[in-house]
Amino acid sequence: MSSTTNPTPVGAVRQASLREINLALLLGRIAAAPRPPSRADLAADTGLTRATVSAVVDDLIGGGLVTEVEPTPRAGAGRPARGLLLAGHGPAGLGLEINVDYLAACVLDLAGAVRHRTVHRVDLRLTSPAETLARTAELAARARADADDQGLTLAGVALAVPGLVGAGGVVRLAPNLGWREVDVPALLPPLTETIPGLPPLVVDNEANLAALGELHTGHATATDFLYISGEVGIGAGIVLDGALYRGGRGWSGEIGHLPVHPEGRPCRCGGRGCLEQYAGQEAIIAAAGLAGENLPADAARLARLATDGDPATCAALAGAGTALGVAVAGVVNLLDLDTVVLGGGYAPLAPWLSPPVAAEVSRRVLTAAWAPVTIRPAVLGADAAAVGAAGSVVRRIIAQPNAWLAR
Amino acid sequence: MSSTTNPTPVGAVRQASLREINLALLLGRIAAAPRPPSRADLAADTGLTRATVSAVVDDLIGGGLVTEVEPTPRAGAGRPARGLLLAGHGPAGLGLEINVDYLAACVLDLAGAVRHRTVHRVDLRLTSPAETLARTAELAARARADADDQGLTLAGVALAVPGLVGAGGVVRLAPNLGWREVDVPALLPPLTETIPGLPPLVVDNEANLAALGELHTGHATATDFLYISGEVGIGAGIVLDGALYRGGRGWSGEIGHLPVHPEGRPCRCGGRGCLEQYAGQEAIIAAAGLAGENLPADAARLARLATDGDPATCAALAGAGTALGVAVAGVVNLLDLDTVVLGGGYAPLAPWLSPPVAAEVSRRVLTAAWAPVTIRPAVLGADAAAVGAAGSVVRRIIAQPNAWLAR
Repeated sequence: MSSTTNPTPVGAVRQASLREINLALLLGRIAAAPRPPSRADLAADTGLTRATVSAVVDDLIGGGLVTEVEPTPRAGAGRPARGLLLAGHGPAGLGLEINVDYLAACVLDLAGAVRHRTVHRVDLRLTSPAETLARTAELAARARADADDQGLTLAGVALAVPGLVGAGGVVRLAPNLGWREVDVPALLPPLTETIPGLPPLVVDNEANLAALGELHTGHATATDFLYISGEVGIGAGIVLDGALYRGGRGWSGEIGHLPVHPEGRPCRCGGRGCLEQYAGQEAIIAAAGLAGENLPADAARLARLATDGDPATCAALAGAGTALGVAVAGVVNLLDLDTVVLGGGYAPLAPWLSPPVAAEVSRRVLTAAWAPVTIRPAVLGADAAAVGAAGSVVRRIIAQPNAWLAR
Repeated sequence: MSSTTNPTPVGAVRQASLREINLALLLGRIAAAPRPPSRADLAADTGLTRATVSAVVDDLIGGGLVTEVEPTPRAGAGRPARGLLLAGHGPAGLGLEINVDYLAACVLDLAGAVRHRTVHRVDLRLTSPAETLARTAELAARARADADDQGLTLAGVALAVPGLVGAGGVVRLAPNLGWREVDVPALLPPLTETIPGLPPLVVDNEANLAALGELHTGHATATDFLYISGEVGIGAGIVLDGALYRGGRGWSGEIGHLPVHPEGRPCRCGGRGCLEQYAGQEAIIAAAGLAGENLPADAARLARLATDGDPATCAALAGAGTALGVAVAGVVNLLDLDTVVLGGGYAPLAPWLSPPVAAEVSRRVLTAAWAPVTIRPAVLGADAAAVGAAGSVVRRIIAQPNAWLAR
């Protein structure tokens, strides 16, 4: 990503404690290894001595971050070495998501396994921020009780919201929830004990966290992609070079407000012709003729109607896909990404949205002839942001195991 | 830019030669220092011994990369130390630009001073690639002769083209030049001697190189910005975190093909409603009623007409600015950048383009109320890409001085 870089000044290493560096280095290698490595593997891999590796690994095992597995017996000479892998019984991350029409919670252990997962469908547009956060706290309490029952310790909480998050976790604006300047940390009771060096609560944009979830599921191989979260609002997480691109002030990814018809429909944001007005869930429902009904019309219902060949729903999805394709073509022309992931409510609608998106990309992207763009549904479902949020807690522990061990 | 990173493995340093690292480290510090540092300053700054610093600095001076300056005499005890700065007499970079209606050449010395600069106005739309490259070689020969006369040694050449550059410097597509699959290195004769470790010719996109020029002029303070090069075509260079973002395949920045009116005017690229069709130089000239004339109508002429208050020109620029603002609003919503630089032919037109661009940004960017966006003209003029190209050669020498010293 960078063009030319100077070598890392060697002096910088002297500043940090060698033990902290070695803890993070070995835990990172254990986390990234395709098969459980032995202590000897780690020594060969890092150039550290066997004695150092063993001492550090003992600390990681003692702190509940790593566990040993017996090798499968094999014929031949010598006793095979025991393998090391991330523990499933120590710290865990709690991920929460507040969206316009659901709340979600998820607990991931250090090894990335989902240990608790729930999605509550509830329309939060007419609920006050305090009431919404109180319900979120109830969901969190149940997730925590379940984690406790399984012998896990919640090491932190990350909360996904469909809006712009400012310093200190204050939600500056979440247009589709009707939130403005909501001080989430002040309104949400403490959900976990505090671990020095680890933030007790991180509030982040839902598309950002969902993109991180997609990046770290292990199923996704792309390191550069645009993740689009299609709910009532439309957000995007931009992953460049295997890292989330947050923008200068943390407010990147507002793809829902890309103008696709500059003098078109007015938008809640004050602009006109924003993508959300053509491809957001409400726009699709209105175009499908389902707006007046009392039944909840969500992505799953749209998918059922489209599967049944309902002409209005199919036409609505084709129109939404074309508008989405116009925006995606602009993004690909700008950023030269080879993968676009349809996430959130778009994932179950991908069979109907992908073809018109691909058509617009092929028609409008200058490099489309040589540089094919893959449009695919997200691996994770509607609670991708909650999974990504829990994963962000877990990855922080893997990056800074010392904070957990020194608690 | 990245969310969490593991510490650099200490072992990596062992692999590279310590001398190479120290050469690059000290040359980088000298290049970045606001005032010429002394050897003692460098030792204090890097933690290297005085003896090591002196040996490395002697190598840099001997190789013509660094020069010493006498300090200004001062009162008080002790003889003040001599300062070190980048040499203006050693290696230099040659930057060339081929655009639709001009050719440019620029020589920069290591200290970043312009030592030769020329822009030839010539319409290259009806000229074959071979003929255009032959003219470019003539410009390069004159630049080289001038550099020789000044005692400089050209260490490399970078060529800017308004199109998509593939592997090996092949221009895949430059729609406004009518180029397709033009093998530039095969058609252009060698322009400098070859220095092992340094590429003799780099071909790159003109907006990318112009953005690099803007980044490294020393006048620009922003480390995150969108540089828009407005010529017959419109390209962009995206600078994130002080580095050019090139995209997965090096083809980022095609802002000219962002759809601003999805079903609008057909574009040369095969799409419809691309920004270029509303804000490219030809579109502005046509809207200003100047298309039928035999006089060349370039940005300077448009600026004169607008200064004189010509109503058709003012209206044309307002319309182009609005279209540009729609595209810029989309980019800012997506990338959360705080600075947009109007470059190339847009720089002299900035007084008329900036207000409508700012109006669209303020109307359409979700975060505009808290996160103001600065729209400003480029510091460099029409030959920004040639300056940036020459600068890219020079910065490669500063990053890898060993290649130059070992030649």
